[in-house]
Order: sequence, then C-alpha cells, then structure tokens
Amino acid sequence: ERMEALVRRKQQEITKGLETLEPEDVSCVIENGKTFEKGGVNVSVVYGSLPPKAVDRMRADHKNLQTQEDGNVPFYACGLSMVIHPHNPHAPTTHLNYRYFETWNPDGTPQTWWFGGGADLTPSYLYEEDAKLFHKCHKDALDKHDTALYPKYKKWCDEYFYINHRNETRGIGGIFFDDFDDRDPEEILKIVEDCFDAFLPSYVPTIAKRKDQPFTQEEKYWQQLRRGRYVEFNLVLDRGTQFGLQTPGSRVESILMSLPATAGWKYDHHPEKGSREEQLLEVLQNPREWTD
Amino acid sequence: ERMEALVRRKQQEITKGLETLEPEDVSCVIENGKTFEKGGVNVSVVYGSLPPKAVDRMRADHKNLQTQEDGNVPFYACGLSMVIHPHNPHAPTTHLNYRYFETWNPDGTPQTWWFGGGADLTPSYLYEEDAKLFHKCHKDALDKHDTALYPKYKKWCDEYFYINHRNETRGIGGIFFDDFDDRDPEEILKIVEDCFDAFLPSYVPTIAKRKDQPFTQEEKYWQQLRRGRYVEFNLVLDRGTQFGLQTPGSRVESILMSLPATAGWKYDHHPEKGSREEQLLEVLQNPREWTD
Repeated sequence: ERMEALVRRKQQEITKGLETLEPEDVSCVIENGKTFEKGGVNVSVVYGSLPPKAVDRMRADHKNLQTQEDGNVPFYACGLSMVIHPHNPHAPTTHLNYRYFETWNPDGTPQTWWFGGGADLTPSYLYEEDAKLFHKCHKDALDKHDTALYPKYKKWCDEYFYINHRNETRGIGGIFFDDFDDRDPEEILKIVEDCFDAFLPSYVPTIAKRKDQPFTQEEKYWQQLRRGRYVEFNLVLDRGTQFGLQTPGSRVESILMSLPATAGWKYDHHPEKGSREEQLLEVLQNPREWTD
Repeated sequence: ERMEALVRRKQQEITKGLETLEPEDVSCVIENGKTFEKGGVNVSVVYGSLPPKAVDRMRADHKNLQTQEDGNVPFYACGLSMVIHPHNPHAPTTHLNYRYFETWNPDGTPQTWWFGGGADLTPSYLYEEDAKLFHKCHKDALDKHDTALYPKYKKWCDEYFYINHRNETRGIGGIFFDDFDDRDPEEILKIVEDCFDAFLPSYVPTIAKRKDQPFTQEEKYWQQLRRGRYVEFNLVLDRGTQFGLQTPGSRVESILMSLPATAGWKYDHHPEKGSREEQLLEVLQNPREWTD
C-alpha cells in the first residue's frame, strides 16, 4: 500500500526534522502488532549529575573520576536501547543497547569517557541456526577491527546476563562490553557503528522464519515462564535499569520499556527430561560457543 | 556529538528494518525535551470492522457503504498523526494528520475509499508572521495541484476545529479535508505527500524563533488555560478521537497522545481589554485570512 509506505517515510522525516531544533529524547514504541507483542527503540540524551553513590560504583573502572565539591560529577550520556518481544514462542526476544558516557572536571575540562553496549538473544526454544546466525553477524562486525574482541565480548555477555539466583543465563548471549576506552575514540565509534549494522541481519531473518510457526498453548505458557526470568534479570540484576531508576529526573517508562507485556511464574517448575524446554535450560546453564 | 547523530540514525534504520517483517504500529513519543514538553508522531495501520453505528455516521458522506449480514463493514485504514506541545507559551502547538480509508463489499471486492487529513496551528499568543508562514506553506502545496483547494480546506479547518460551547476556534487554523475521493487516487496521494512536505518548513522556523523567548508566569498560566480548551475540543468534539475510542481493540494511549502534559481551567476567565490574550481570542472568534 503506497499510502502506508508514505506515512512511514514521513514519520521518520518529521521526527528527524523536529530533532534538528534541539536534541530531544524520542521513544518509538511498537505495540499490538501481529509479529511483535511489545517493543521499543529509544534514543536518550542526558546531561546530568552523578550522585556520590554512582560515582563510587564507577570509580572501580574509572580511577580518575573526580567529584565536585558537593560530591557530584557532571556527565553527558547518549545511547540507543531496544528490546523486542515477539508473540510467537518460537521467535526469540532480543535486546540491543549502545551508549557513550562522558564526565567533566569541576573546572569544565573533559575528564573521562567510554563506550558500552551490546546485543543479545533470548529464545524460549533453542534453534541452533538462530543462535549461530546472531553470533556470526556480531563476530564478523568485530573481527573486521580486531579478532580479540568477539571472544572477549561473547564471554562478557554470558557473564553479564547471568541470573545468579537461577544459575542460568538470560538467553543464548551475544556480545557485551563496557568501559571501552583503550583506543582512539574514532575507531571505537566505527566499531559501535558496525555492531549496530550487524543487528538487523542477525535477527530479521530469524523472525521472518519463526513469526508464523504453529505453536501450542503449552509452548506459549513456557514462553511466559521464560519472560518471568527476563523480568527477574532486568529488575534484580541489570545495572542499566538500576542506574536509570536511581538517576533523578529519568524517564521511568523508558527504562522499564524492556519489560514484556506479560510474564508468568510457577513454583518450582521443572521441564520434562528430554523435552525441548529442558534442552534450552541445558544451554542456559552451560553457555556454548556458537561460532567456529 | 557524533555518537548522538549515530544513535538517532540507527533508531530510524532499525525501526524501518523491523517494519519490513510486517506492518506494525509505531508510536514515536517525544518527552522531557527542552523545546517540546510532549509530542508524538504515530503511524497506525488497521484492518478492522466498522460497527453499525459508525457505518450510519459515515453513510452521510459515502452512500454506497454496504454492510455485511451482521451490519458491520470491513475496513482498512492507515495514517500518520502528530501533535506537538512546546514548553514556551510563545511557541505554538501543532497538529497534523493524514489518513487513507477503504472498505470492502461482503464479497471481498473494493467498495469505497477516501483520503482525509490536514494540519493546523494553535498558538497561545498571536504572532501574525507565524500564522502567515503556516498558511502560506500549506497554500503553496495545494495551489500546485488546484487553486480551488486551499480556500476550501482553510474554511473547512476553521469549521472543523470550532469549539461550539466556547464560540471560538481551537487555533488559527490551517487546512482540513475529508472524504477526498473526487479525482484519481494517484493524484490525491501526490497532494497528500505535498501537504506532508509543507509541514516542516511551516513550523520549524517558528519554533526555532520562539523556543527560547523569555516568558512570564502569567504567560505560562495563560498557556495552561489555552491547553484546557485544546483538551475540551479533543475530548468533546474531535471525530477522530471519538472514532478511535469507539473502535474495538484500538490503542487508547495512541489516541489520547494528542493531550497536553498539563492543562488548566479557571471559572469564567476573561483576559483584560486590549491585552495580548484578548488579541488571540479576537482572532479565534473571528477567523482571518492569512494569505494574500
């Protein structure tokens, strides 16, 4: 439909045109679609002040953080974060976030900066080919710059998205990095851009394949339980969520955009031996290598 | 900031990439910005069924609407709607909406179709140059196709956005049309596209000029009262809002996205004689021509 294509194009042009006036936070929310139950793609740009508690936590990785007299540190952050929860239990949830962070000295000179982010996949049912595609695309993007990066970031992702109290990872991983500042910022920006560009080819073919796959009520229920784990990770463990909720004036709705439309919990649930559900848990308890 | 530009570009690319899978409704929300207090740019694509009540109302303009046995009419609609409420009381609110509508016969053959929409400006303080720019851009877009269109749509806009119980228009107008089906659909689509393209040049320069203009608490309060009128129009009179809220399964949040972040009412308020506030009311009570 030509009008449909036109309105989508104009949505982008107008949003862009309005942003030229002044950087604004724009959250794009996908809802009630046939493929995606809930999703969002948010851009956030913040000039703020880190409270002393946050400074203490960050000093572990950034020793040169210097506070102002009141114990605060002025900062600038910008980033894009995205979470997509599809309807079909065979179609994996995905999450992506890339961000840049900068602080200043009390006298206004630049102090420290770093990049962070990553992308990961959270299936309810394991399809090895989907996991392999996701990892391969991201590995290729990083290998172009430095073949040491993927192994490091793959491992970091498995460790970061580990749900301690469940002894399992949130999903089958992807890449994750933080405090990335050990080379030319121009080069890091290029790496981040290539990681961004790896995302659509790593995910869209999988969704195209799974979105209309038949499923049973039992499979949908299992997806609900998996989403319960997703919520547990995000609310209990995710540093980004915790940082966001602690930052004065932050947009709670945007931060919690990552939560699924629905989730479920069942007391002491264990999938049947040899079932596809158990097969997923096995991989979450023992993260695998997905590339050659 | 280069990373900022990158994340904005990637937001657009990713949203677009995800839409290729299947048309999804995407709402882009602007919030907590320095210039815009609240705003949204929504694309909506609906396949649905018009209930008998809605059919009766539409039959006034579309005599060939034929119902199915259950009294419903299957329809397809797509459109973009946008509302922007700036912070500064000297910067006008704006609204834009263009949509396409189509129905089918019980046997699945196409029945009727039409385009509708428009764009209008709602200042709290009158700046003639802003009103003239807004109207000129839209007039130029329409004149390219047919010089009979602007006068007709300008009048239609003043009539449509008239708050009966207040004896005033919502703002200083713009263009509005509905049931547009009296020429080649290709040509109408082109007219709609040109109207879309008229928007940014009709509005962005005004906001650039007004967004940092100094203002008093009294002026902010007057803006609140004007926003109260905006809410009255949208909830009591707007056909689009009413249609949306009556459509089963519609997204209430998207429909009510047009409402301002805050609004105010004061019992029997009348601005002082000769004040700038009275000057605005004068224009709202007696719509003017803004083009030569």
